Amino acid sequence: MIVPKRVLVRGTGLIGTSIALALRAKDVQVFLSDADTATARLAADLGAGSLVPDLRDAKGIADVAVLAMPPAVVGRELGYAQECAVADVYTDVASVKVLPAAQARALGCDLEAYVPGHPLAGREKHGPAAAQADLFLGRTWAVCPLPETARDAVAAVTALAVACGADPVLTDPQTHDRWVALVSHAPHLVAVAMAARLAPSSVPPDALKLAGGGLRDVTRIAAGDSALWTQILSANAGPVAEIVAEVAEDLAAAARLLAALPQPASPVGALAGTAGVTNLLDRGRAGTGRIPGKHGGQPRNFAVVQVVIADRPGELARLFNAAGAAGVNIEDIRLEHSPGLPVGVAELSVRPGEVGVLLDAMEAGGWPVRR
Amino acid sequence: MIVPKRVLVRGTGLIGTSIALALRAKDVQVFLSDADTATARLAADLGAGSLVPDLRDAKGIADVAVLAMPPAVVGRELGYAQECAVADVYTDVASVKVLPAAQARALGCDLEAYVPGHPLAGREKHGPAAAQADLFLGRTWAVCPLPETARDAVAAVTALAVACGADPVLTDPQTHDRWVALVSHAPHLVAVAMAARLAPSSVPPDALKLAGGGLRDVTRIAAGDSALWTQILSANAGPVAEIVAEVAEDLAAAARLLAALPQPASPVGALAGTAGVTNLLDRGRAGTGRIPGKHGGQPRNFAVVQVVIADRPGELARLFNAAGAAGVNIEDIRLEHSPGLPVGVAELSVRPGEVGVLLDAMEAGGWPVRR
Repeated sequence: MIVPKRVLVRGTGLIGTSIALALRAKDVQVFLSDADTATARLAADLGAGSLVPDLRDAKGIADVAVLAMPPAVVGRELGYAQECAVADVYTDVASVKVLPAAQARALGCDLEAYVPGHPLAGREKHGPAAAQADLFLGRTWAVCPLPETARDAVAAVTALAVACGADPVLTDPQTHDRWVALVSHAPHLVAVAMAARLAPSSVPPDALKLAGGGLRDVTRIAAGDSALWTQILSANAGPVAEIVAEVAEDLAAAARLLAALPQPASPVGALAGTAGVTNLLDRGRAGTGRIPGKHGGQPRNFAVVQVVIADRPGELARLFNAAGAAGVNIEDIRLEHSPGLPVGVAELSVRPGEVGVLLDAMEAGGWPVRR
Repeated sequence: MIVPKRVLVRGTGLIGTSIALALRAKDVQVFLSDADTATARLAADLGAGSLVPDLRDAKGIADVAVLAMPPAVVGRELGYAQECAVADVYTDVASVKVLPAAQARALGCDLEAYVPGHPLAGREKHGPAAAQADLFLGRTWAVCPLPETARDAVAAVTALAVACGADPVLTDPQTHDRWVALVSHAPHLVAVAMAARLAPSSVPPDALKLAGGGLRDVTRIAAGDSALWTQILSANAGPVAEIVAEVAEDLAAAARLLAALPQPASPVGALAGTAGVTNLLDRGRAGTGRIPGKHGGQPRNFAVVQVVIADRPGELARLFNAAGAAGVNIEDIRLEHSPGLPVGVAELSVRPGEVGVLLDAMEAGGWPVRR
């Protein structure tokens, strides 16, 4: 694959500018353009490339043009960029793909030269100032050609993704949108629907004192911006609706089964009528097992070591120093604080063979460990 | 409140033995008993108290007897312990309260002396060897008297919970079961129903490559044991069914709204018909905001600093050392690894006023920081 030598980034927000910075680090010649001139200038000042004030003066300036903008405007901007003939190949980075592809088709764009794309990366912040050359490092980048898209165009965009450090995954717009509905949009709505049960004033604060880490995990993403998520969900409405309806059906069926049990429920052993619930639990378990873990591929089985730590400066440093001195790599860490108290439990994930060494090191360091 | 001087723990698994250890640390005299003699002996060997081989020889041995066993057997064991008259006051630690209370009533137990209880603490491991004196430190301990329960009995069990380091919350069995359905049992089923969508073989591995931290958060608890969770959900079937049915209704309604939108959805601004979705998103946001955060009370607003780190031994130690040397306390940490690559991003939560100092320290240490 040959990395494009000259790339035009149209739309210099977080994603566009990050792509520009990543490509500049690979010595690609980058041109910048944005409907908001100040935004493009800021990106240029950050070293992301050279400013192109007017696309009408930029005929043939690039091998690939990247349209980095919300899904709803991609079609129109693609038409304009192709009218100006700024590049041989065009791609976009919008988080849904059917909508921009349909609009491009409706507007009569040259679909042979258009490769819908979607890098799976982002930040809480926006704008060129938040951009990072390493934003796509190790991230998946969906490349979603249309039936009309030329092979050379797909190869060029794939090479661009690789140059940004990403892991390209080839699919098509319809499949892409079903996938993101499944792994991102539907989970958001499910988290929201659970969190919404906590909102009524009929739920007293004491009830929420009984909450553990599980509830926090399930509902964490529900804190997202409502207006933004209404747009995201609407732009992928069909696939999201299908999956959410299936989740709703499974939950309604489980609720019916549980409601039909004797109240209060019989002791263990007399649980006739719960096979459907167990079946759902089994399917859920199988589903989580398929989510790739760290370092890609299947989730690695790390052992978890719990250490009680004081909540004061330097305490975690001391912990990691002790682990490091013992030659143990902490693969992951999770802090669970005891509400109301200045102590917490650190859950350290390590390779199973290193548990003993780590526990010894922790004990030697004076931490109460939980074997 | 006067802490009981003599406590009998019947059932020396993880919870029972942890209570025994916590009370021993407060110089309470603890007696141990278990249907499985070897288990009771192990707890005694761990220093949790003195063995009581036969409850029939233990009349009046304790001020409070703690029944630490699954919900379905509490009623029967309460009847037996009261028959042996081992204590003045009786409590249990089962995770549901209506079922044991109903069985105690049906068996004609002395309800004046019975205080249903539920410490909100646990571990992945089981048995006395996994017990910890600090298991209840800062955790909520629900105290759920019946209408018949004597005030003195409630005071004694409340004092016992406090002696274990817990934060007692007073309620009744019905309310307790509705609360745990809301904050624990229903969220489990919701996570499971979402995760179940990932299970079918029609979902290819490439689809799951598009998964981010959100999906992992939502589905994490769905990895729990199916048989155990079938029991838990069945023992609290009524309240769980009610909440799960409400979640299912909200999701089904959102799915209907989304399915009714034009496909592919119209651009931003033409999103008629999405008000219901936005309303659900708003309610979800409000709900998450109510979950108590670290250190109890409302969640504190920490600033998040992202640092790109190499995945090698000693790297996190170096990071925490630099933070500690700068006098910055890391309140929380989350590691986000780039799949397939030996680098990751550490998200460090610190007090907003300490962000600048931390960033300077990180940069001085050679880490690429994201401002």
